[in-house]
Amino acid sequence: MSANLGITAREKDFSEWYTDLVQKAELADYAPVRGCMVIRPNGYAIWELMQKGLDGMFKASGHQNAYFPLLIPMSFLATEAEHVEGFAPQCAVVTHYRLKPNEAGKLDLDPEARLEEPLVVRPTSETVIWPMVKKWVQSYRDLPVLLNQWVNVMRWELRTRLFLRTSEFLWQEGHTAHATYDEAEEEALRILGIYRRFAEEWMAVPVLYGRKTESEKFPGAHHTYCIEALTQELRVAQAGTSHNFAQNFGKAFDVSFTGADGKLDHVHTTSWGVSTRLVGTMIMVHSDDKGLVAPPRLAPVQAVIVPLGKDDSTRAQTYAAADRLASELGETTWDDAPLRIRVDKREHESPGFKYNDWELKGACVRIEIGPRDLESNSAVVARRDTGEKSPVRFDQLVQYVQSVLTSQQSSLLEKALASRQANTRHIDDWAAFEKHFAGEGGAGLVLAHWDGTEETELAISERTKATIRCIPLEPLHPGDDEPGKCVLTGKPSERRVVFAKAY
Amino acid sequence: MSANLGITAREKDFSEWYTDLVQKAELADYAPVRGCMVIRPNGYAIWELMQKGLDGMFKASGHQNAYFPLLIPMSFLATEAEHVEGFAPQCAVVTHYRLKPNEAGKLDLDPEARLEEPLVVRPTSETVIWPMVKKWVQSYRDLPVLLNQWVNVMRWELRTRLFLRTSEFLWQEGHTAHATYDEAEEEALRILGIYRRFAEEWMAVPVLYGRKTESEKFPGAHHTYCIEALTQELRVAQAGTSHNFAQNFGKAFDVSFTGADGKLDHVHTTSWGVSTRLVGTMIMVHSDDKGLVAPPRLAPVQAVIVPLGKDDSTRAQTYAAADRLASELGETTWDDAPLRIRVDKREHESPGFKYNDWELKGACVRIEIGPRDLESNSAVVARRDTGEKSPVRFDQLVQYVQSVLTSQQSSLLEKALASRQANTRHIDDWAAFEKHFAGEGGAGLVLAHWDGTEETELAISERTKATIRCIPLEPLHPGDDEPGKCVLTGKPSERRVVFAKAY
Repeated sequence: MSANLGITAREKDFSEWYTDLVQKAELADYAPVRGCMVIRPNGYAIWELMQKGLDGMFKASGHQNAYFPLLIPMSFLATEAEHVEGFAPQCAVVTHYRLKPNEAGKLDLDPEARLEEPLVVRPTSETVIWPMVKKWVQSYRDLPVLLNQWVNVMRWELRTRLFLRTSEFLWQEGHTAHATYDEAEEEALRILGIYRRFAEEWMAVPVLYGRKTESEKFPGAHHTYCIEALTQELRVAQAGTSHNFAQNFGKAFDVSFTGADGKLDHVHTTSWGVSTRLVGTMIMVHSDDKGLVAPPRLAPVQAVIVPLGKDDSTRAQTYAAADRLASELGETTWDDAPLRIRVDKREHESPGFKYNDWELKGACVRIEIGPRDLESNSAVVARRDTGEKSPVRFDQLVQYVQSVLTSQQSSLLEKALASRQANTRHIDDWAAFEKHFAGEGGAGLVLAHWDGTEETELAISERTKATIRCIPLEPLHPGDDEPGKCVLTGKPSERRVVFAKAY
Repeated sequence: MSANLGITAREKDFSEWYTDLVQKAELADYAPVRGCMVIRPNGYAIWELMQKGLDGMFKASGHQNAYFPLLIPMSFLATEAEHVEGFAPQCAVVTHYRLKPNEAGKLDLDPEARLEEPLVVRPTSETVIWPMVKKWVQSYRDLPVLLNQWVNVMRWELRTRLFLRTSEFLWQEGHTAHATYDEAEEEALRILGIYRRFAEEWMAVPVLYGRKTESEKFPGAHHTYCIEALTQELRVAQAGTSHNFAQNFGKAFDVSFTGADGKLDHVHTTSWGVSTRLVGTMIMVHSDDKGLVAPPRLAPVQAVIVPLGKDDSTRAQTYAAADRLASELGETTWDDAPLRIRVDKREHESPGFKYNDWELKGACVRIEIGPRDLESNSAVVARRDTGEKSPVRFDQLVQYVQSVLTSQQSSLLEKALASRQANTRHIDDWAAFEKHFAGEGGAGLVLAHWDGTEETELAISERTKATIRCIPLEPLHPGDDEPGKCVLTGKPSERRVVFAKAY
């Protein structure tokens, strides 16, 4: 039986392919609660590696981790007007703090344990963080406040997809307070740079990075910056956002400080987050019809050794060779971390099953050791991204594996970048624009002129389902940042923006 | 102004001392929601270090991390009878998934968004984990299942204390499934061993380890094992528990597997957890009237360098020396990790303020560099636990700091062990027992005989407020495991058990 039996091909139905892959590679599964997911060990290992990479970058730039409570009093959430409007329709609300058994031996709410004020399960934590920080900050010397937390949040969703959109998800949310607008703006952009670097250097995913339009920005934000990735379906996934709130929250929660000049002022704040959605994005960018393709820096298993043999005496030899190799590899590092290795000794499964299974689960390198290989003091090494197989002598194996991992990390990025370039168009004519986005599928990135009004933005998205993903901070091509005429209205446009269909 | 101004002395009021310390050392603070806390960066750093140590031990013993959802359908919680009885009175319950603005510009529950089935915020996750694992396990080859998750949980509490007892807390919960009772029992004990080792080797806290009585065990468990620590108040904090459920959950959720013999059987499960309560326990065992005393392996700051000088030109010299030293220390490791160092250049604060401040915050070693020290090519090194100060030549500083950290880690454990020994009594007479536990304070550990009945256990706790903390797995003193007569009833007793007042 083939391990990936039942994975729909991408060509046939991308969405089904994705869900099949996530479940069969044991990355995640649907939970009994609508819209929620269970992250299984293979998937959680990716998230842990992501956390490690990002957390190191946050700490290196002076941020500290903390923990703020899950439940927020309803009145706190209501303090900032735009913010509450954005989140109220999606809030899970706690109203009782006790259950009691009923006559049928089941449970009921205890009506005597109804909360005076309902509590909201955090959809994001601005409204509970700033009232606390208010108590801790008095002087400019207490600034900046550079906090981050790794937590679960909840935003009720009707249409969900594992990792990509779930009612509960895991994320990090950074929250910082500064003395000036410029410092907050600098912080929001510094974090955007970290997100971009992480996407490219760890996830091997090239990203657009830019500013959101007014209608797409975060509820309550002054500016929202984002990174956005193009998947193989040619749709765009928003992968991370960074917001400058100016003094919106500083004023709403009266968080003030005495400046060096003795004057009282409200703090300028930022917030920024990436979530388990990154796992889904990474899968959608790199994986194939055989299963998970993960860049080595984030792969749960970097090398799997599969010793072969049809009888006990042969297996005794190949197992011994596999164990020797595993311990040799285990003593080496790649990317400053010990190699993540497995040895597959399942005797009740065929070699073919095991190969398929490890391709499904995304092991970057597979090392096959059979009796013939032993005779020639070598093993066959298969590379996950290209499928290429090479015989490699034992005394060169460690070095070979390290170099394949390095090459795989960079070639995945190059491949994704080439695909994005091949699927980026400049379109200046409305008929061509409309035609380009017609149909149900994705359509890549379109750089087009826009007159800067919310009206036009809305009209375009209603007619094409394409939205403005961002106003890039740097032009993707020379001339993208030069003025022109709006693709829909013909009115003046300052520069091209990026249109695409998003998840 | 002294930084620790306002910390109550332990002698005067232990409970106030503790709360003052936690807040003034910026470890945690009360949240706006009753019973919840905010863990501030200084406190969260301790928890992160604890996570790192424990997570390494869990992974080394074959466990994998995963994530199960926060919300559990009420009917799932009700599936195991004892378990639901134990947790129903403490459950926060989500009943709605949307809020809507009212006429006053505030928020109301949206009555149209009432859930058909209320959802419980997990108090622990057995009832959501086993229905999922049921889908994944078919054969004995799929066993054991060795899962762990690092998450927040909620158990509504009326009387709370920062870290020690809060309605929301952070913890790890391990959940494992095995083919046989013996394997589950072995797992429960393996984890108890890890907890004990962590408490002693990382937290420098000696712990009792043993089995809970029937009345004190976890709701639904067959056996509960625990570690318990004696604080300076001479009360006992339960610091970790490990449960063998036998087939209780396997049967309740019908999690079954086909054995090697082809027969169908239900799995045997365990669960085990430690929480942010460990942070509170560690503080209560080691800290003093000056503030936090943390064992070096878990201290957020291991060494702080305080360069002194009343004018710019002196400071230029001491700052340069401090920076040189910091970079020298920064390149070295202790306990296989880079040293955690700070340089304090706050010019608006006096040396005395800074010394107090770092004692309050628990820096293990303070290195003072003044102009006179520079002349003699040395610095003054103060040790947090003993207060001892020594001049040390620059060229010996790195080695000296490393050796002080090593010595501090072991002497904190020795001191705590000596204090526990000095506060452990054998009592065989009821009048003496009752007198020993009279009054409001703690009273250390008492090893006494008990007839093994729940009735006697209850009578003793009603009359003395002392409870049976555990039936030790190994005798604390020779003869503790020999038979005798119950301290209250005079009936036969198999062995001595440990009585104490607990938090």
